[in-house]
Amino acid sequence: MTTKKNRLRVIPLGGLDGIGKNMTVLELGNDMIVIDAGLMFPDDDHPGIDLILPDYSYIIQRKEKLRGIIITHGHEDHTGALPYLLKDLGTPVPVLGTKLTLGIIAGKLEEHRIKKPKLREIKQGGHVNLGMFGLDFFAVNHSIPDGVAVYVRTPVGSVLHTGDFKLDQTPIDGRFTDYAGFAKAAKQGVTLLMSDSTGAESPGHTPSESEVGASLRTIFAAAEQRIIVASFASHVHRVQQVCDAAVACGRKVVVTGRSMINITKIARELGYLHIADDDIVDAFAMGDMPANKVVVLCTGSQGEPLSALARIANGEHKTVQIQAGDTVVISATPVPGNEKAVSRVMNRLYKAGANVVHKGIARVHVSGHAAAEELKLMLNLVQPEYMVPIHGEMRHLHAHRALAHAVGMPEDHTFILDNGDCLEIDESGVRRGQPVSSGVVYVDGLTVGDLGQVILRDRQQLSSDGIAMIVVAIDSRTGALAGEIELVTRGLVLGADSADALKGVRTRVDRVLKRTASEGVTDSSVVKKALHDAVSQYIWESARRRPMIIPVVMEV
Amino acid sequence: MTTKKNRLRVIPLGGLDGIGKNMTVLELGNDMIVIDAGLMFPDDDHPGIDLILPDYSYIIQRKEKLRGIIITHGHEDHTGALPYLLKDLGTPVPVLGTKLTLGIIAGKLEEHRIKKPKLREIKQGGHVNLGMFGLDFFAVNHSIPDGVAVYVRTPVGSVLHTGDFKLDQTPIDGRFTDYAGFAKAAKQGVTLLMSDSTGAESPGHTPSESEVGASLRTIFAAAEQRIIVASFASHVHRVQQVCDAAVACGRKVVVTGRSMINITKIARELGYLHIADDDIVDAFAMGDMPANKVVVLCTGSQGEPLSALARIANGEHKTVQIQAGDTVVISATPVPGNEKAVSRVMNRLYKAGANVVHKGIARVHVSGHAAAEELKLMLNLVQPEYMVPIHGEMRHLHAHRALAHAVGMPEDHTFILDNGDCLEIDESGVRRGQPVSSGVVYVDGLTVGDLGQVILRDRQQLSSDGIAMIVVAIDSRTGALAGEIELVTRGLVLGADSADALKGVRTRVDRVLKRTASEGVTDSSVVKKALHDAVSQYIWESARRRPMIIPVVMEV
Repeated sequence: MTTKKNRLRVIPLGGLDGIGKNMTVLELGNDMIVIDAGLMFPDDDHPGIDLILPDYSYIIQRKEKLRGIIITHGHEDHTGALPYLLKDLGTPVPVLGTKLTLGIIAGKLEEHRIKKPKLREIKQGGHVNLGMFGLDFFAVNHSIPDGVAVYVRTPVGSVLHTGDFKLDQTPIDGRFTDYAGFAKAAKQGVTLLMSDSTGAESPGHTPSESEVGASLRTIFAAAEQRIIVASFASHVHRVQQVCDAAVACGRKVVVTGRSMINITKIARELGYLHIADDDIVDAFAMGDMPANKVVVLCTGSQGEPLSALARIANGEHKTVQIQAGDTVVISATPVPGNEKAVSRVMNRLYKAGANVVHKGIARVHVSGHAAAEELKLMLNLVQPEYMVPIHGEMRHLHAHRALAHAVGMPEDHTFILDNGDCLEIDESGVRRGQPVSSGVVYVDGLTVGDLGQVILRDRQQLSSDGIAMIVVAIDSRTGALAGEIELVTRGLVLGADSADALKGVRTRVDRVLKRTASEGVTDSSVVKKALHDAVSQYIWESARRRPMIIPVVMEV
Repeated sequence: MTTKKNRLRVIPLGGLDGIGKNMTVLELGNDMIVIDAGLMFPDDDHPGIDLILPDYSYIIQRKEKLRGIIITHGHEDHTGALPYLLKDLGTPVPVLGTKLTLGIIAGKLEEHRIKKPKLREIKQGGHVNLGMFGLDFFAVNHSIPDGVAVYVRTPVGSVLHTGDFKLDQTPIDGRFTDYAGFAKAAKQGVTLLMSDSTGAESPGHTPSESEVGASLRTIFAAAEQRIIVASFASHVHRVQQVCDAAVACGRKVVVTGRSMINITKIARELGYLHIADDDIVDAFAMGDMPANKVVVLCTGSQGEPLSALARIANGEHKTVQIQAGDTVVISATPVPGNEKAVSRVMNRLYKAGANVVHKGIARVHVSGHAAAEELKLMLNLVQPEYMVPIHGEMRHLHAHRALAHAVGMPEDHTFILDNGDCLEIDESGVRRGQPVSSGVVYVDGLTVGDLGQVILRDRQQLSSDGIAMIVVAIDSRTGALAGEIELVTRGLVLGADSADALKGVRTRVDRVLKRTASEGVTDSSVVKKALHDAVSQYIWESARRRPMIIPVVMEV
């Protein structure tokens, strides 16, 4: 008989409600491991928020069981919560990753002043034991080098977690997906497959990264003036192909943008990016180089307003100004929500005289995620007993699950989970267990965590309707008005004539205060409520707006 | 010799900085006409703004010359500014449009309480004279029925304005683009072609609307439970195809969503939408109908939070609740900027148990705009001497201009214009004239116009960083503090312990007031400035945030 103690519990704490903040807990008896510790970048629903983390209090509460954190690859949505998690854990916990992944993490932890983290390098094809967990790592292709899938074996069952992956048959670094490893795992048995769903809605196969190289060479060969390429800094293969195409047509590469400079440095030091010192030039040394001898490699492919490309487009970059005839290549796709920002940058570049090449008109970008046919191949290769789609919004998870059914998995062997849901594995199979506490944590300036929905709702109301503050001083004994009434508005127009509006508000406020004074009301909260209602009603009647109304009553 | 008086001036007042607020002025001697009067829907850069209009003060200033306003079709980005323009003109001006276009406009003007507008119906293939302008109207295909292109002839030259168009070779209403009309215009001579650029970045041809019908029939035939289709209300052809597919598989159509109910009513009355009374059912009468006998047709294809589909997805719709196995078809594409909102609705529908069919996985939507090959065909058909791409962002205008060069137009015969730029046409050709005053006008609640960049910047700052108000009462003679200090924050967290933060702010404020009082400062603006700086500095030091700081000094 199976007791609760010898059930393997699998709990995704993030990654199931959108692309980002990936984090999965595996727990068996007295041992626990975590796969990935990512963050999510906020969208317009989260004004002013810097970062979103998964709520990992479940891990903190059981930290004495935690044997290690495995990071599948170096992207922020898999690594970004790590500094916060390590700080909250307090005690040093082994962090396992491949060489480049650890190189990127090390820089990040240093920025957060985390001293002496226990970074443990793993090798593709390697094996590690952490408590009751036996781990094997399989090479996978992705839009950052050195990614791995993790095969976790325990006495009661096994889990295969793909990380993020695609099946690139012509990877530019010659590092192929470890088909033999996956096949061996299949033979040993995979109870539960957890597989990347990001590309599940794309039919067919994702094109190989090497197709981008061919495109870049064609574009570079035709360009007569300066070439500027924007891409994700962490996409080292893309950066390599830009460098190769530049060198092939006799141009030097100029790197600009903080993260692009950082990552190219790390990647060159660790042997993941190959370009001769002579072929890479400092942005400040570029001034007198002929336009047709330069490729500028920069950040800003997502239209980020402070990025190098946005500054170039706005004519605010220190060393790079657009000249008529320059070619700008946006070698990326806008992350959902960034479409308008990217368009805005492109429109400015056109206006400045550049020719803009983007994914819509040439193959200057391919996805890093497996499309439908690759996901089916993974299912057929691994032959899991059960599967749970991870890494995606509900739409992607459902699309992925439909692919599993298409290759013959029974409907009751696939699961759509929410963050915090739990699957329990033992010899008899996989079933749902008790969900654990989960959620999101906002990082806003120096504040982590206690920033609730109230703050976000306030910000949204402030942004759509503005604010009106009404300040009065009242005599604390009589409740009568002392001094002038002040009305301050921001983000709000009170009709065409603001003096009229002010007069209107004052009349109402006067009336309220006379009434409360005559009734002998001195409780300032009652006065505040009356002021709030009077001002709110006046503004609705006169301007059809519902700003936030803040009454301040000073007792003097 | 040409004097200024016999030059035709062509001035786009909108439509060149994004998709929307299309409006073009044509002026010759004492006569002026306007083609389209559209609005633009605001995006995240315009928090709280309801609508954006083109600044049409140029027209108002010359209103005695205005002979008529021609509306090419019934979409909001071509009609939405009309009520505001007519109100500002004061005197009734003829508004010309085809039957459906006028039907839609009439409803809109009624909502705005514009009495007895001079609506003049035009026919495709028809001819109208307005002052010195001779106008011919050619049928074009688009995502709303009854669209026309306008061919404007004058003694000094001619302009062909395509409106929005695609070349559908199998239009579902059998109303083909008037190739003969365009060809005749070409023979008579087209000095300047103004052509729709929305689809200029799409290669090839836009598929026919009739392909969507085939798709819908397949999906409907396979559905076992209820079917829900979301689309643009004004897309009468799409609505017709949904109705036809529903009737073909023995289902009744239930219409929900205010604009969907409005437009289906108008379109049926005017003979543009054909469905038997028996086959269309009131939403309230649906209750007891079997799920497999119903197709719900609703608004909300853009993820609008208050739309019928969003309410259905959230379980808040009065009569339609999602049941497991329902099929939801999103028969539209997200307008740029709406991608995340649409995804959010889709995710909720999946969560509620629906199967969601969208453009990414089946041909349930095609564009209403000509793709690259159609735009080239239009250029070759019309053979204009000059061309200016209209209706698009800078990226679309440039892509369209490149197509014109590809079919052989000389570079100095194509123009990229900004809103308010002017082209002057006379017997010797087309050249740039003096730009006129132009811009945008915001509609925000009851306020039209005087809502400036300051208000929008305020709203953005409020939304990202919140607001802190510091209120003090000072003795007007001594400058000393009277009563308590009040600190009110919204959308802002001041560190983990708010009591601490409050204490910190108070200490700083106390210090400032003691200093100003001791220096004998009683000028409240000086005190305010000192308070502002002290509070701002404290919040930056303690929370790394830059909220809006509002100091209020009450003199008592």
